[in-house]
Amino acid sequence: MKQNITRKILQSHLVEGQMIAGEEISIKIDQTLTQDATGTMSYLAFEALGIPKVRTEVSVSYIDHNTLQAGFENADDHIFLQTIAKKHGIYCSRPGNGICHQLHTERFAAPGKTLLGSDSHTPTSGALGMIAIGAGGMSVAMAMAGQPFPLVMPQVINVKLTGKLRPGVAAKDVILEILRIMTVKGGVGKVLEYTGPGVETLSITERQTITNMGAELGVTTSLFPSDKVAYEFMKAQGREENWVELLPDEDAQYDGVMEINLAEIEPMVAQPSMPDKVVKIKDLEKTKLHQVFIGSCTNASYSDLAKAAAILEGKCVHPDVSLSVAAGSKQVFEMIARDGILQKLIASGARVLESACGPCVGIGQAPPSAGVSLRTSNRNFRGRSGTKDAQVYLASPEVAAASAITGVISDPKDVVDVNILESIKESMDRIVDDRMLEAPVENTDDVVVRRGPNIQPLPLRGQLDDVISAPCLIKVEDNITTDDIMPAGAKILPLRSNVPAISQYVFNGIDPTFAKRAKESENGGFIVAGENYGQGSSREHAALAPMYLGIQVVLAKSFARIHHDNLINYGILPLRFTDAADYDRINQDDKLVIKNVKELVNKSEFVIANETQGFEIKAYATLSDRQKEVLLAGGQLNFIKKLL
Amino acid sequence: MKQNITRKILQSHLVEGQMIAGEEISIKIDQTLTQDATGTMSYLAFEALGIPKVRTEVSVSYIDHNTLQAGFENADDHIFLQTIAKKHGIYCSRPGNGICHQLHTERFAAPGKTLLGSDSHTPTSGALGMIAIGAGGMSVAMAMAGQPFPLVMPQVINVKLTGKLRPGVAAKDVILEILRIMTVKGGVGKVLEYTGPGVETLSITERQTITNMGAELGVTTSLFPSDKVAYEFMKAQGREENWVELLPDEDAQYDGVMEINLAEIEPMVAQPSMPDKVVKIKDLEKTKLHQVFIGSCTNASYSDLAKAAAILEGKCVHPDVSLSVAAGSKQVFEMIARDGILQKLIASGARVLESACGPCVGIGQAPPSAGVSLRTSNRNFRGRSGTKDAQVYLASPEVAAASAITGVISDPKDVVDVNILESIKESMDRIVDDRMLEAPVENTDDVVVRRGPNIQPLPLRGQLDDVISAPCLIKVEDNITTDDIMPAGAKILPLRSNVPAISQYVFNGIDPTFAKRAKESENGGFIVAGENYGQGSSREHAALAPMYLGIQVVLAKSFARIHHDNLINYGILPLRFTDAADYDRINQDDKLVIKNVKELVNKSEFVIANETQGFEIKAYATLSDRQKEVLLAGGQLNFIKKLL
Repeated sequence: MKQNITRKILQSHLVEGQMIAGEEISIKIDQTLTQDATGTMSYLAFEALGIPKVRTEVSVSYIDHNTLQAGFENADDHIFLQTIAKKHGIYCSRPGNGICHQLHTERFAAPGKTLLGSDSHTPTSGALGMIAIGAGGMSVAMAMAGQPFPLVMPQVINVKLTGKLRPGVAAKDVILEILRIMTVKGGVGKVLEYTGPGVETLSITERQTITNMGAELGVTTSLFPSDKVAYEFMKAQGREENWVELLPDEDAQYDGVMEINLAEIEPMVAQPSMPDKVVKIKDLEKTKLHQVFIGSCTNASYSDLAKAAAILEGKCVHPDVSLSVAAGSKQVFEMIARDGILQKLIASGARVLESACGPCVGIGQAPPSAGVSLRTSNRNFRGRSGTKDAQVYLASPEVAAASAITGVISDPKDVVDVNILESIKESMDRIVDDRMLEAPVENTDDVVVRRGPNIQPLPLRGQLDDVISAPCLIKVEDNITTDDIMPAGAKILPLRSNVPAISQYVFNGIDPTFAKRAKESENGGFIVAGENYGQGSSREHAALAPMYLGIQVVLAKSFARIHHDNLINYGILPLRFTDAADYDRINQDDKLVIKNVKELVNKSEFVIANETQGFEIKAYATLSDRQKEVLLAGGQLNFIKKLL
Repeated sequence: MKQNITRKILQSHLVEGQMIAGEEISIKIDQTLTQDATGTMSYLAFEALGIPKVRTEVSVSYIDHNTLQAGFENADDHIFLQTIAKKHGIYCSRPGNGICHQLHTERFAAPGKTLLGSDSHTPTSGALGMIAIGAGGMSVAMAMAGQPFPLVMPQVINVKLTGKLRPGVAAKDVILEILRIMTVKGGVGKVLEYTGPGVETLSITERQTITNMGAELGVTTSLFPSDKVAYEFMKAQGREENWVELLPDEDAQYDGVMEINLAEIEPMVAQPSMPDKVVKIKDLEKTKLHQVFIGSCTNASYSDLAKAAAILEGKCVHPDVSLSVAAGSKQVFEMIARDGILQKLIASGARVLESACGPCVGIGQAPPSAGVSLRTSNRNFRGRSGTKDAQVYLASPEVAAASAITGVISDPKDVVDVNILESIKESMDRIVDDRMLEAPVENTDDVVVRRGPNIQPLPLRGQLDDVISAPCLIKVEDNITTDDIMPAGAKILPLRSNVPAISQYVFNGIDPTFAKRAKESENGGFIVAGENYGQGSSREHAALAPMYLGIQVVLAKSFARIHHDNLINYGILPLRFTDAADYDRINQDDKLVIKNVKELVNKSEFVIANETQGFEIKAYATLSDRQKEVLLAGGQLNFIKKLL
């Protein structure tokens, strides 16, 4: 069979299972990454396994999220992460060095390799022809322990690119167009593999934008071929020895195909509050802005900022707009300083922020109340910006820069002569300097792991109960994000290492009484949900904190992939309605009962009695044999500890 | 009489009173400034007066404090400040444009003029030979309304500078040496006027460092002559037409004199947790650091950052140290980008923050728990950094940069060849661009002032009661700062426009039960305090919030100047023990009674009965006739409204 790239890499890493779409396989993981917001829990889990050093080729702990430091918690976490990395043979990227995905692609990503990261945008490194998958921190801990990573064999969709983007149109517009077509749940169970003559017209950082925001489709990952463009990028990083050519076989087979003519793409925006609410700017009503942000792991490359600066040069941000800009990595930050780009940005009135995630995840730069914000990041979920009633739009750096000048969402071609952008390429004159990226050391016996008072042990649950008899504590709608379940932002994120404290905020934006009610419920409870429950960020706190509050079952119409795994990792049953219409029959506070739970887990078919209303419904679970064992053991850590 | 500069300026602005040290005078105010943390209340007070346009030559509203934006509150405040400035003929400096004192000196300060600012470091502009005084926001509102500013005629102390600083020794070390000699209360009732042959060796930004941190001495203000160095600086700012020479008369008289030989100064640090706990670095034990911050209104000039960059060039911050850097203004930020300085800072691993106050006032970059931080800012009060148990040291940018490399507090000469610093001068090649500084407009009829939901009306109290019978709600020690009374930092500062909300944090670091107890006390209460009560920041919330909680009297051994005025502005009686030993006789919760309050205010002598313990003590107030009227009217706003 003529192989596509995805199958080639999976084949070479296959440990268990058959590569038939929909069946569980497990693969060897070569590299892992964590970021600080998910990392503390991941390393606590790894530590609990008692393994002295990571069993991967490369594991990296990036500190890029909680960099505001409004209290002692963030800095304490940074020291914990730095010391525990040193203890266990893990690279540590210090605060200020940049955003994990940008950095990983610059310094570690390699064609043909596998990467598991405790961040949903890990697929960014797919730009260099690797299989890079986002997962919960517990899954990453298991990978660091050398355990194969289990996943459902995805369908591989070939996205054939033809043509060439016109000036003023960006890689961001390509992925927005795909989101418009596929929607936020259209990619579940799929890998998008980009091919075609359009590929070679895209730089690695443009490819990064596309693989990064592929996460918003719900895909397992996205990837590009490893071609000459990849070679040039890796050579500029001093890493050409890690380059291999990796192309699909001629006439390789795919499970589906989609064609995109780059030349036909126009500037787009995703409207509030979902990344797939995409329209062409020309079809958008006049939209006045209060704020613009250029940055994030999606769009903070050298060429992104150079293009934004070219548009802003000689102009000033609109009086009603606050523009903030953050480079994606220290490498990029230093390069734009070297090349006069940073000066242009400062001159235009941009507020230059530290190279970090920042506003994308509500860590600073919250819009005014009911404010309208245009951002180059990847998510515009309600409340994620830090302001509950803000309206967040997503667009390219070119659109963002043009709009910052006019004060309304604007097509760049209506603001500047976009031909000036044509000559701006991703710089190959990179400043490579890994001094803020601490390498593992040989002898780690003397390393003391430092834990601040906010770093609490990882809570665990016991074995699964055989009878679950508990109320429906909350009923939520379709497309609930992990931001809805476990809000982030500058106020809540610092509690990531302290599950008892952060649990108080579960569903805080939807029902602030939830945490209290759950904690007070004697026998725990159910969450009832619609389609695509748990989309968005990979944060396992969206499973861990509900587990801590006593949640035993999430009963939904369907689940997002990473969250489904996270629920299992923390011993929460992820059940699906056999008849989706039953969703309408359950009310909050209804008492729901499942008997013979252990037996039913093995069958994966369930009967749920609604004792309040007096009827029974059917539900099922999609569980591999391993996942059944994990659930019965009371979660991943209990399971693996038994195994080791 | 041969006049000094201070008396010349006061004389030319004198409205009432006689220029005899210790007597109240009032002066015409030419310019005002506010920053966002104190500004919202100041403009609400101004608005309440019903005057359409400010009656000053220049009034500027700077947005430089609350720039993190962890929630909607900050951005809402910014829009409020921007629109209310436009409405009333006030300049507005937008977020990202820089720190008020740096900017005011660059763009507005002028020799011979008077400036009143709602920030205690307003004296910074004294570097250009003006009388620049910090005050509460209410006082600034009155000045914007054209009211003369009342103050106690200060003693004028001549600080004679001789010699020249050696490389690696900085202006910061000069003011630290003066703090060592005079202490934090040594300057009360005084103006420091710098003269002597050493003056011409100091650039305007070096002078700024000295006048800025003069605030920590408790002085009314500090100032330098307006000489050729001042002319060159103003010319570089395109403002030479506002320059006049302003020197003391030959043999001018002073109320005291102090000599400092610049050549003898050595690198110093202020130790935790008071700016006057100053020692030479060579006398300090080895002090390991977790954090270094280079920035703030004290030390974020072009030459400060250029010298820091020269020390850091080619080196990397120590693995255990987080270094953050922020330029003092957009002008400086753009210039260091232009001249390659910013690239050196980024290369060394510095975390570059927005041009704003930031870490200095606990707005981000809080140290780890029990962490040790070295900062170039002006205050190291307990908890101000955002971390209650952090140990904060203060030093020059040169010391900070050297220490960031070694990881311990270091003399620059032990780290680099300090002769490389000799050639680094304050740049006269300034990038002047006022586009982020919005000028007043002529027609303001259509301007709508926008108020977010967090902006609550200014609370007022009624007239003074004739009998005060209330408990001592808290008893505190000497040198209590306004940071102790009304904490700042990233978590509390966003509530500055919402007095009911922020009041919950009064004395939070000392006694978290205080606010609740005060609110529950039926008849209000007394605060009993030691020496120098209310030193530090000018924040009037340290008076306003206790007033809101029902405090009627502060009984102290002595008061800091600005806070004394703020208490009167908000109708709280500032009483002093006639016999300081009586301080020891009062306990928390003792019931204290003052009868015939109105009559006693006029006499300024008080009898306080301690009904719990059954004794009487005497107290007095230092009140001008105007201040008596203000107190009797129930505060400044009630008083002025009656007057207008």
